[in-house]
Amino acid sequence: MPDNRSLVDGSRVLADLNTLRGIGAHNAGVHKPTFSAPHMRSLAWLAERLPEAGLTADIDGIGNVLGTSSKPGPKLLAGSHLESQNFAGWLDGPLGVVYALEAARIINPDPTINGAVEVAAWCDEEGHFGHFLGSRSYVGVVAEAEIDAARDRTSGRAMRDALSDVGLAGRARAKAEPGRHVGYLEAHIEQGETLESSGLGIGVVTSIVGIWQYRISFSGEQNHAGTTRMAVRRDAGLALARFCVAIDDRFPALCGPRTVWTTGRITLDPGAPSIIPGRAEMLFQVRDDDPAVIDRLENLLRSMAAEVTAQGRCSVTVERLRTGAPALMDGAIQQAIEAASSAFAGGRSVRMPSGAGHDAQILATIMPVGMLFVPSIGGISHHWTENTEDDDIVTGAQVFVEACRHLLAQ
Amino acid sequence: MPDNRSLVDGSRVLADLNTLRGIGAHNAGVHKPTFSAPHMRSLAWLAERLPEAGLTADIDGIGNVLGTSSKPGPKLLAGSHLESQNFAGWLDGPLGVVYALEAARIINPDPTINGAVEVAAWCDEEGHFGHFLGSRSYVGVVAEAEIDAARDRTSGRAMRDALSDVGLAGRARAKAEPGRHVGYLEAHIEQGETLESSGLGIGVVTSIVGIWQYRISFSGEQNHAGTTRMAVRRDAGLALARFCVAIDDRFPALCGPRTVWTTGRITLDPGAPSIIPGRAEMLFQVRDDDPAVIDRLENLLRSMAAEVTAQGRCSVTVERLRTGAPALMDGAIQQAIEAASSAFAGGRSVRMPSGAGHDAQILATIMPVGMLFVPSIGGISHHWTENTEDDDIVTGAQVFVEACRHLLAQ
Repeated sequence: MPDNRSLVDGSRVLADLNTLRGIGAHNAGVHKPTFSAPHMRSLAWLAERLPEAGLTADIDGIGNVLGTSSKPGPKLLAGSHLESQNFAGWLDGPLGVVYALEAARIINPDPTINGAVEVAAWCDEEGHFGHFLGSRSYVGVVAEAEIDAARDRTSGRAMRDALSDVGLAGRARAKAEPGRHVGYLEAHIEQGETLESSGLGIGVVTSIVGIWQYRISFSGEQNHAGTTRMAVRRDAGLALARFCVAIDDRFPALCGPRTVWTTGRITLDPGAPSIIPGRAEMLFQVRDDDPAVIDRLENLLRSMAAEVTAQGRCSVTVERLRTGAPALMDGAIQQAIEAASSAFAGGRSVRMPSGAGHDAQILATIMPVGMLFVPSIGGISHHWTENTEDDDIVTGAQVFVEACRHLLAQ
Repeated sequence: MPDNRSLVDGSRVLADLNTLRGIGAHNAGVHKPTFSAPHMRSLAWLAERLPEAGLTADIDGIGNVLGTSSKPGPKLLAGSHLESQNFAGWLDGPLGVVYALEAARIINPDPTINGAVEVAAWCDEEGHFGHFLGSRSYVGVVAEAEIDAARDRTSGRAMRDALSDVGLAGRARAKAEPGRHVGYLEAHIEQGETLESSGLGIGVVTSIVGIWQYRISFSGEQNHAGTTRMAVRRDAGLALARFCVAIDDRFPALCGPRTVWTTGRITLDPGAPSIIPGRAEMLFQVRDDDPAVIDRLENLLRSMAAEVTAQGRCSVTVERLRTGAPALMDGAIQQAIEAASSAFAGGRSVRMPSGAGHDAQILATIMPVGMLFVPSIGGISHHWTENTEDDDIVTGAQVFVEACRHLLAQ
């Protein structure tokens, strides 16, 4: 059994995470939207740390931080992201970046290890302006037109204006170099309660589920809420509510064991207390790692919409906004994480899919990738109460660094 | 049978309405929010017309236009409002103002008629900033603090700023003078389909229903839409949808024959596609002219909320935001409208409650009031497609003017 337990400096890992938590602090969490002042300060903080790990730091034109090594031998890419959802938790993103930094600090100066860990913080994983813009820019699939069109989903501000204000050129300087990396490793909080409720320390991710997203629109007749009798109403909002309930009643019969679905946003038009909504819209999302399951559910959605429309009171349309792309994690990387868990987490690991999207799914299009999870207290995430026990954070760091060593040694 | 048919100038009435339609035109309707430029131009237009009817025009500090007469004899107050809902119809408001203007133009110069019609356009009947601010200011129940706190419900702009921009002092100059008026008469489009579907020309309003408004809030647990299994979710948005459906299923057993209820606005918090809503809120309104019916329904709402909360997944609170005050129309005024309908609408009238609120309910607190309705095509209102046949508009004007004569002669 390798003994690098002493090499991981648990208090340094916790101190780094708490430093990042102090930048843009909100309650016990952070408010660090993409390109906000606290986000930019976090990127600068990381860029200043990278030389301590023998890395040359660069912040590219779209806000990715990349630390590259001139050490000979294989290179493993590792990282996550530094911006947060609005008023959200302190670990979603920074955990994976600080683990990667810690791995680089331990492995890169060590002459007995062939190769190096290179560190990345991908910009806008949380999607304030788009869809994995940083990692997608790195793998070369973001066109200028996409950046031209991107707007902050909260403020509506143009991404070009936001980039220009923080002095970024809006163009990736460091595109992925084919063959440079043996793989990509990312750590993250689980954001669910599987690990905590089973007393486990490490989740070995097998796949990242795909996300299918739909706009479901209801069209009825806008009218006066006082003068229109109940019997003649064509209330688009009520049709929407009945549709939400019908989804919840009918999906379980056709879904897979881990399918999840969510109505995250509802809009009634015009949205006034004295007006019967003539139009209503819901943003609906389904996640699974099996496209065949999604096919069944999408067919059900469309036939439910046709049933409502056929009743003649309101018409319903289902528009797919986003097609999922499930990503498989590399088998050798899963084994490396499991071996490291045996050594440093008493074997308390489990293989599991990731229900959340991560930059690893983008990197998976150009190299082998893997992910490990640490437990989330109460399974809470995307909220400022998100947290993980300090011991679990340190154990995760030990497993992460050990898995990096395994992968460079292969 | 009196013959004043020739005295009502139908083409003048239609021309005036079309002039007002041209100020702030939007499609076939208008966009004339309170204190917008088109609203202020409409007030100025009316103030310029009033001297033609022998009236002294004043625009008071809160935006009411009042035309007062020095003619001896009884005074009848008549009017409605000139601002519109956002992107709404051309007749909701202006119809009643132009009828009042037409009545004043015919009756006031006529030496054979004892007394005069005074004309009012009440500000903000549509509630952009508050709740019948103009007519409530006139009857003396708007405190300065209410104006200080009022904000535009669309833009959030302070009413004080909006008043100051259009040069209004924010204070009613012309308060109601006790005993000055024998009553108040207001005409309005029906905003429902009762008249049209029965082939009737005039609705004789018996009462204006009260509006009870509630904020119903759902509290669950905000969480990640990908990593949180369906079985452990506490989705506040789904709880809200189920509640809306339950209202629709359970209210009919306890409501009155004309009760109406509406969910006009739904908000999910945080409202992002990848986040399970931890909180959700609906604005819910019930209208009836019988407070006992409302008591039963409010009790049902509260017991439904308690049932959901007791199930333990989400908690529900019901908060009453507005308590209804049904207003009875004066019996003698109803008879005057009916007599005028017999003379000029072939008796095609029906007594009916008003499901919508109107300034008449505010004036009813200080004098006898009455209202008459003309048909709405397809029952549509609060939408730019709102319309009434020209013939019905002219018939309504004839009935209105005749009813004014009846009331001054009593």
